[in-house]
Parts: sequence; structure tokens; C-alpha cells
Amino acid sequence: MELQLPKGTRDFAQGEKLLRDRIVATLKETFELYGFAPLETPVFERYEVLSSKYAGGTEILKETFRFKDQGNRDLGLRYDLTVPLARFIGMNPTTKMPFKRYQIGEVFRDGPVATARYRQFKQCDVDVVGASSLAAEAEIIALANYAFKKLGLNAVVKFNSRKLLNDILDYYSVPKEKQDAVILSIDKLEKFGETVVKNELKEQWIEESKILKIMDMVSLKGTNEEKIAQLSKILKDSPGMKEVEHVLGIVSDAEFDVSLARGLSYYTGIVIECYLKDSSVKSSVCGGGRYDNMIGNFLGSKSYPAVGISFGLDRLYDAMLEKEQAQQKTNTKVFIIPINTVKQSIELAQKLRDKGINTDVDLMDRSISKNLDYANSLGIPYVVIIGKKELEENKFKLKDMKSGNEEMLDAEELVKKVL
Amino acid sequence: MELQLPKGTRDFAQGEKLLRDRIVATLKETFELYGFAPLETPVFERYEVLSSKYAGGTEILKETFRFKDQGNRDLGLRYDLTVPLARFIGMNPTTKMPFKRYQIGEVFRDGPVATARYRQFKQCDVDVVGASSLAAEAEIIALANYAFKKLGLNAVVKFNSRKLLNDILDYYSVPKEKQDAVILSIDKLEKFGETVVKNELKEQWIEESKILKIMDMVSLKGTNEEKIAQLSKILKDSPGMKEVEHVLGIVSDAEFDVSLARGLSYYTGIVIECYLKDSSVKSSVCGGGRYDNMIGNFLGSKSYPAVGISFGLDRLYDAMLEKEQAQQKTNTKVFIIPINTVKQSIELAQKLRDKGINTDVDLMDRSISKNLDYANSLGIPYVVIIGKKELEENKFKLKDMKSGNEEMLDAEELVKKVL
Repeated sequence: MELQLPKGTRDFAQGEKLLRDRIVATLKETFELYGFAPLETPVFERYEVLSSKYAGGTEILKETFRFKDQGNRDLGLRYDLTVPLARFIGMNPTTKMPFKRYQIGEVFRDGPVATARYRQFKQCDVDVVGASSLAAEAEIIALANYAFKKLGLNAVVKFNSRKLLNDILDYYSVPKEKQDAVILSIDKLEKFGETVVKNELKEQWIEESKILKIMDMVSLKGTNEEKIAQLSKILKDSPGMKEVEHVLGIVSDAEFDVSLARGLSYYTGIVIECYLKDSSVKSSVCGGGRYDNMIGNFLGSKSYPAVGISFGLDRLYDAMLEKEQAQQKTNTKVFIIPINTVKQSIELAQKLRDKGINTDVDLMDRSISKNLDYANSLGIPYVVIIGKKELEENKFKLKDMKSGNEEMLDAEELVKKVL
Repeated sequence: MELQLPKGTRDFAQGEKLLRDRIVATLKETFELYGFAPLETPVFERYEVLSSKYAGGTEILKETFRFKDQGNRDLGLRYDLTVPLARFIGMNPTTKMPFKRYQIGEVFRDGPVATARYRQFKQCDVDVVGASSLAAEAEIIALANYAFKKLGLNAVVKFNSRKLLNDILDYYSVPKEKQDAVILSIDKLEKFGETVVKNELKEQWIEESKILKIMDMVSLKGTNEEKIAQLSKILKDSPGMKEVEHVLGIVSDAEFDVSLARGLSYYTGIVIECYLKDSSVKSSVCGGGRYDNMIGNFLGSKSYPAVGISFGLDRLYDAMLEKEQAQQKTNTKVFIIPINTVKQSIELAQKLRDKGINTDVDLMDRSISKNLDYANSLGIPYVVIIGKKELEENKFKLKDMKSGNEEMLDAEELVKKVL
């Protein structure tokens, strides 16, 4: 048997996993600071749920891992956390609104594998369901800024209103039926540049003169205020402009980007996307927006206004990993080397653990030097050596692995020193 | 579309999920206190890995969810965390030994659904790979006791030596080739009682007189010391007895149970199983033991002695849920009600969050009384009301939801009060 991982998946051990856990803990803490409560749903769903007309769409369905249970029930690995959220609300109609939930979990896409594209990846989603107020968007933007600050990542939160793009196209008399395709092209501006977008618009039979004007609008540079001033010259009473100004009236720490669209059918209002500065991770690390119709359509019920964003843990991890200078390999703080004193060593370990000090004991009966090498290779800061002599004196030899200093201490002094 | 969960799966929302997270956090903290480092592997594995002769076995393979990726690769959802551990070691041959890893993750079994039997459940595994010393078993037993204490669960950690069972059967001249089947029957003593076990032994053509003596041995009652004294009368230089005495020489907080066997082929030495007292969860909530051959056999390489246990999160959760008096529904501490003061309310929320206080703000423009009902239904302890009057005075009305007391405080006083 040749040992391999499934294509597009990864293992994370020791330091890498500690880093991932640290990111998850920071996001979890942030989500709860902003009043969100956690939800856990199964890793797989009934295929009927995943393939609903109003769920993830046909493209995503092609990338869904599908299988059957013993009862021949059609199942699939979840491809996002939004469909399970909608399913949960449908199955729990008495859920109190607004339902502010976060969910951190694995999702799966059987698609092409590339840099920063995996077949299993972890999404960290926050959504407010049931609130149509733009204050919800403002809160989500504040939350994203806070999360990046806590992670120590230099990021920019960009946002736009999907309605504003329609307003601009209306102004230039682009027919309604063409607007979705045009917006899809405009969305490519950041990634593929002006020429690509212009060519696509030409192919869509938009007049050359209009293309130039539209491009001017969506490529606006400057401060948020400058962009708003420019747009206000032509757009009066624009619903999109009002949304943008409303949000900026509550939070200021976001960059208004007129070209941002985030795909098509799903979003109905404000869209949000976050990018890292000074990182080789160029793709968006977090994105979302308002989707007022999806849950209601999916459930075939009354409307559920909703807004949310999703942090991509694997991209955040890749970015944090590249920044880390010396990677912490273990959370263990003390390593005890028994010299024929296993029982007493484990007793001391228990004392340290009772004080909340992560402690490990040699289980290999190795020599002192081999044990020191082992502790050193994991970066454990303190080593305690316990031989017969130490037991007789009721003292333990504590070695500070950084300085190399050694001290003879009793248990109480040792705990104090390490704490 | 009828909304349903996949058979044998569950959602966990709000209070339930908070409880699950609390259990996971406690176990994680305990594992790190005892010097274990985390590992994360994909939710699915190559089917070839899962179906290896030395992996989980044919019975478990019948319950494995199996599917293919677009490249027609044969995959399956993992049914445990031990096979991924063995695969990881095989793929990372320079892993430092002992490899003390923990892994907390979902596993899947497409089997019959019953009370406390789910098709997706969470396992929390700790294993020491590479150490043959019985100190490893002692450490694992100490860890289990610590975890239950931290969880506030009244549990008993039972253990035995698989070798001891062989020693007893050797003493009564039960042929080697029959011993595995006899041990499998003895293992049923706790669950099905003496009559069932005796009948099974009769069916295996064990002589009636021997059956009575064997039953006497494995049903021994009393303290650990009393059991050891009884067994020592007949078993001299028994390898199994030596193991049991060695472990009890290091840790005392475990119940020596001669009938404990935990299945057959897998375990090679000490076996461990933990049960809850005063709980309706009667099945084992944690179990494991030493399996010195499995990883080496699986990898077709040198031997990797190993010992570990697995906590069943779903059973721990069921037990904790039943104990909880009033379930905490949210971690939110302060709920702010703006009266046409959304911007200022979000500003105050940010101040509280910057101090680490979980804070939520009304996003529904609801009346004060509706908002108070909402905060009350979630058990949020503090509510702040901000109207125009409060803004003018630069003070906020803080309501203690338990006592009903109201106070006018400035931002700084408010933070102090809530902290």
C-alpha cells in the first residue's frame, strides 16, 4: 500500500496545528464578542437539500462529493455553511430573530486543486438572519476589522452596494436584462485589469462611449469621501449610494470600492471582501454580504433578510504561517526527566498540572542528553531532572533551556519559577 | 422539499453547542496539560488506507461511507482517528518519538442508529506512540481522571491487562486457540451478566468446573489490593499481574477489573474503560489501551508501541446535558437597545468589546419591551438603553436583568460594573 493523502487535502501537526487552533480561537472569541452564538451541523447533508434550486447552484453541485447510506439515502458532503444554516432555520421555525450564529467547520469541493485551493477547507462564518437594518452590515464590517487586528494581520475591508452598480448601469441606460452580465464583468476589474473588462463589455454590445464612462465610474480612486462626491454628481437619490453612505455613517474603517460585486444572483445589497496587505496571499481571505432572498426562497416561506461573511481559515493560515518567524512546536512548558524516579516524576508532573502548567515526562527511559535534545527540538522552555540525590534532598534540578541556567528548587519554588 | 437531517446526525445550536464547546475546550486543555500536541487530518481518507488489513477491520468497513472524487479515486469518511494517525506516522517517518498527539474530530459509521449511537460523532483521542513503558498507561489513566474532574463528572476509570486474562486461561489449561473467543465472552460480563457469559463458555466446550473457577476469577470483587491478593494465590510470575501491579505502583485512582477485555485482536496489554456514576449514560464514555502491533503492521515497518484512549464527546455531551439545571443560551453579557441612536450604540458596543465584554446591539429597531423580552429569553445578564436623553447627559441606563435594578452610568463606570 502506498500511503497518500486524498488529493487536495492536508495534515496539520504540532506547530502548524497550534497555529490553526490559535486562528480559530481568535475568530471564535471575536464572533462571541460581537454577540454571535455557535451552531454545529453535520458534515454531510441530504443531497436533496444541497441540490435545492435555491442552494449553492449548479456549478457548486458539480463539485459536491456524493454518496449513499445503507438505507440508500442520497447524501453529500456540505460545500458551504449557508445551506445548512437555511436548513436549520427551516427545521427550527421558532428560532428567535435575529438569529446571530457563527459556525466554524470543514467544507468540501471536488474541484481543481491549486495554490490556496483545497478540496477540504475550513470556513468560519458569521451571519445575522432576520435583520434588514444596515446596522447589521456595519457590525459585520467592524467585526472583520477587529478579527484582523487580533490576528495581527494587516488587512483592508472593502465594500460596495450591488444596488449601486445597477444604479450606475441604469444611469447609462444599460438594459436591465444585460446588467447581470455587465456586473459580472466589472467584478473582474481587480483581478484581470481594465483591458479584460473593456473587451468583455464590448462583446456584450455596450457602446464604446458608455464603456469608457462606466469604467471611469467603477475605477474611481481616492478616499471614500472623494468617490462619493464624484458619484453624487451624477447619481441623485440612488438607493445604492444611500446604502453606502448609511454604512459609512456608522463605521468608517472600510474602503468603498465601486467595482466590487462578488458574483451574481446571490447578493442583494452590500457586498464585502477583505484582502491582506504585505502577504503573498492575494485572493480574498474573507467575503460576504447581504442575501435577503436566499433563505426564504430555499425554504419556500416568508422572507428571511440575512447578511454575513465567511473567513477562509486555510488562506488566513497560509498567510500567518508565512509571517511566523520561529514556529512554536508545542504548548508544553516543562519536561521532566526521571532517573529511575518515574513515580516521583509523575507526582511532580501532577503538581505542576494542577497549577495549570503543561508538563510532559520522559516515557522512554532515555539518557539525560537524549532527553535534553528532545526537549530542545520541541522548544520546551524548562527541563526538570529528578535523580535519587534530588529525592533525598527533596529538591529538583530546574534547567532553563534558553539560558542554560540550572537551579535546585523544592516543588513550591519550582511552580513559582515556571509560572 | 421536506427538510430533514441525514439519519443518525444532529444539529447543535446555542446552549447545546456552547456546552459541547465547553467539553471540547476542557479536554483540549487537559491533553495539553499532559504534554500532548494536536494533530488535524482530513475528514476523508483514501479507501485503500481505511481498508488495509491492519486498519479498523471488516466489520467497521461495512459501516464506512464510501465515495469517489472526480478523478475516480476511491475515498471514505474516516471511521476512527487511529488509522489516520498510523497513516500520518507512515508519511512522516522523521516524526520525533514519543509522538504524543491528540486529535479531536468527527468520525462516521454508517451503522444502526440507537440511543447514544450516531452516524456522525466526535472522538477526542490521545495517544502516545513510540513508548513501551507502562508509565505511559499510568499517565493516560491520570489524564482521564483529571479530565472527568475538570468536567465535573463522577466517573470511574477501570483497567485490566489483556495478558492477565491469558494468564488465567493458561492456568486453567484453556487451549491457546480457544482463548480469544473465551475472552470475547468474558468481556460481556458487565453488560450481559453471568448467565450469558457462562452459556457462551459452555458453547465453546469449556468444562463446567473450569467455567466456575474462571468466572470466580474474573468476577472478583473488593479493593484493588484484595483482588491482587486473591489472584496472587494462584498466579505466580504472571506477566499480566506484573503489568497491573506496575501501573498501580504509579497511579492509584483506577479500578482493577479482571473482566475487562475491550474486544479482541487490537489490544496487546493494558486496557482502559471509563464509566459514569449517577448518569443515565451507561455505556463507556472513554476507552482504549495498549496496541503495540497495529501501527507497525499497518505500515509494514518496524514496530511502533502505542497506547491511547478515546473520549466519546457525544456521550459526554448527553451526560452533561442531563446534569445541567439552567442551560446557558449565549455567552453575550450586554445587550444594547438603541432608541434612534444606532451609531452611538455601536460605538459603546465597541468600547465594551475592546475590554473583552461580549456585547450585542439591537438590529431590529424593536421597542424596548420587545428587546427586553429578547434579552431575557437568551438570559443576557445586562441591558443598556440609549436614547437621546442619555446621549445629552453622556450617561447610559444599565439594567441588571436579574435584580431589575437600573442605574445611570458613564461609559467607564459601565465597563467597570459589567466586568
